[in-house]
This record gives sequence, C-alpha cells and structure tokens, in this order.
Amino acid sequence: MVIREATADDWPALWHIIRPIIEAGETYALDPAMDEEGARRYWLLGEGVRTTVAELDGEIAGTANGYANRQGNGSHVASGSFMVDADKSGKGVGRALGEDLIAWAREAGFRSIQFNAVVETNAPAVALWKSLGFEIVGTAPGAFEHPSEGFVGLHIMYLEL
Amino acid sequence: MVIREATADDWPALWHIIRPIIEAGETYALDPAMDEEGARRYWLLGEGVRTTVAELDGEIAGTANGYANRQGNGSHVASGSFMVDADKSGKGVGRALGEDLIAWAREAGFRSIQFNAVVETNAPAVALWKSLGFEIVGTAPGAFEHPSEGFVGLHIMYLEL
Repeated sequence: MVIREATADDWPALWHIIRPIIEAGETYALDPAMDEEGARRYWLLGEGVRTTVAELDGEIAGTANGYANRQGNGSHVASGSFMVDADKSGKGVGRALGEDLIAWAREAGFRSIQFNAVVETNAPAVALWKSLGFEIVGTAPGAFEHPSEGFVGLHIMYLEL
Repeated sequence: MVIREATADDWPALWHIIRPIIEAGETYALDPAMDEEGARRYWLLGEGVRTTVAELDGEIAGTANGYANRQGNGSHVASGSFMVDADKSGKGVGRALGEDLIAWAREAGFRSIQFNAVVETNAPAVALWKSLGFEIVGTAPGAFEHPSEGFVGLHIMYLEL
C-alpha cells in the first residue's frame, strides 16, 4: 500500500470510487445528485485542502482529504474525509489513509483532528476511528436520514494529537 | 423590536456590527483579517441562506442567518449564526433573532436545528440557547483558541423541532 498526494490525472479513478458513495447516500450528507464537476470541486480543488490516494497493487483503492476544520481561532483543529472503493474494503485502505492523515496533521502543527459527521450506522468507520484513538465527543440525534435505516445520529469524533 | 429579512442596503449597518465581532475573535472561528467583501460574502450572499435583521427603535441592533446545516441526507437539520451589536446587548435582541430562526426552521420543514460551534466561554449565548430548548449534545475540547482564555471547548447544541 502506497499513500501519495493526488494529482489532477487521478480524477477518473477517484470519480469511480466517489460516485457510488455519493449516490448511495449512506455515509455522507452530500447532494446525491451532485454531478462530476461538483464532486471534483468538492474533493480535489478546495483551497488549503490536501488530497491523498491509496494505491494497492498499483491501483487506486481509496482517497482522503485533510484540511483545517475552521478558520481563525479554530484553525488549529484539522478535519478529513475518506472514501474507499467498495470492492477494496477490508484491506486496510481506510486505516492507512487515516494513519497518514494523523501523521500529516501532527507534522503540520494541528493540535487535534475533528470528524464532524460520522454516520452512527457506519460501524466500520466508527470502529476504525476508535481504534486510531478517536473518541465520540457528541452525537447529533437523527441528523442523518439513512436511506434504509431512517433517521440516525451523526457522531462528532475527536483526537487530541 | 422588529425582525425582518435583510436587504443589500442593510450592509453598512451589518458591517458595523459584524466587524468588531470578527476582529475580537472571541465567539467565532473566522479569519480575524477577513475584509469587508469577504464578510459580506460570508454573511449576506450565500446560496440558500436567509439573513435577518433585528430593528430596535428603528435601528439595526443585530443580525442572524439561517440555512441547512448539511446537504443531501443531512438537509433536514437547520443551522444559524447570530451577531448582536455590543452596544445593544441585554435588550433581548439575540433572543428575538433566535425565536425567529426557530419559527422559520419549523415552518420551512426542518426537523431540528444544530449549532456547530458555540464557544463554551460565551456564557450569554450558551444560556440563551438553553433557555430556548437547545441541549449541548457534545463538546470539542480545546477546539477554540480564545484570545484571553486560551484553548476552550466548542459546544454542539441541538434542538429537535
């Protein structure tokens, strides 16, 4: 597994991963009708956003973002987003991307990492972040309408670096 | 006290209120160096954002925003931001703006309201939102660097409608 920064050339492979995740609407509170250009702007081109990809046997298997969660007096807290190819789950891709985010945030001088909206029914993600040291510091009840589970909570997860 | 929707003509009065709050950096995680055009874009012109003003004896004494907190499967949760003229504090301006936000969110079909980042040392705001029925559902520890208090928490406050 290799983690490296994403380039514009990676976009087709990233869109292949991201599109079904957005359309499924099970783990991200994003517009399910978001088109490719909207997704590209969201994932790849934001100011101050670092985008990485995970390569497994030479193929892109997942992608992550890292950025300051807030401006000004909140800019010492990082945040991040993760998407893993559904066909490559269970191979440690999310974990490798998460460990890379933590290392990057520490090196960049952030004091903590906050995930603002982890869907509580996304058990693999909740378990992964816990195993990397994140704690659930709060849950917004019913803040996510899961397509099959109905209204479920969004966890705020936090790691002090 | 009259609460009404803001117009472009209100901007000079709003900037008079907003500027010292941004510069003080005690209650909002915004870039303290944000210029007037940046503040105008932030406060007045966002897509899908409803901006209101509170008039007290014919003068603008405060302003608020209301919007969907997230997209897609999170868009049933509203959020809002509030700024009150420091010279007009203690006159019920924040409360009137908050009550108006709650009424608007209910009417617009939102199911709840989430405030993502209430600075824990901002005691008047925390007390006001509690008195309107909001609960603290979590706190991100040390997520805000207060200019005089140091690292303090950011509360996530939530009201089911």
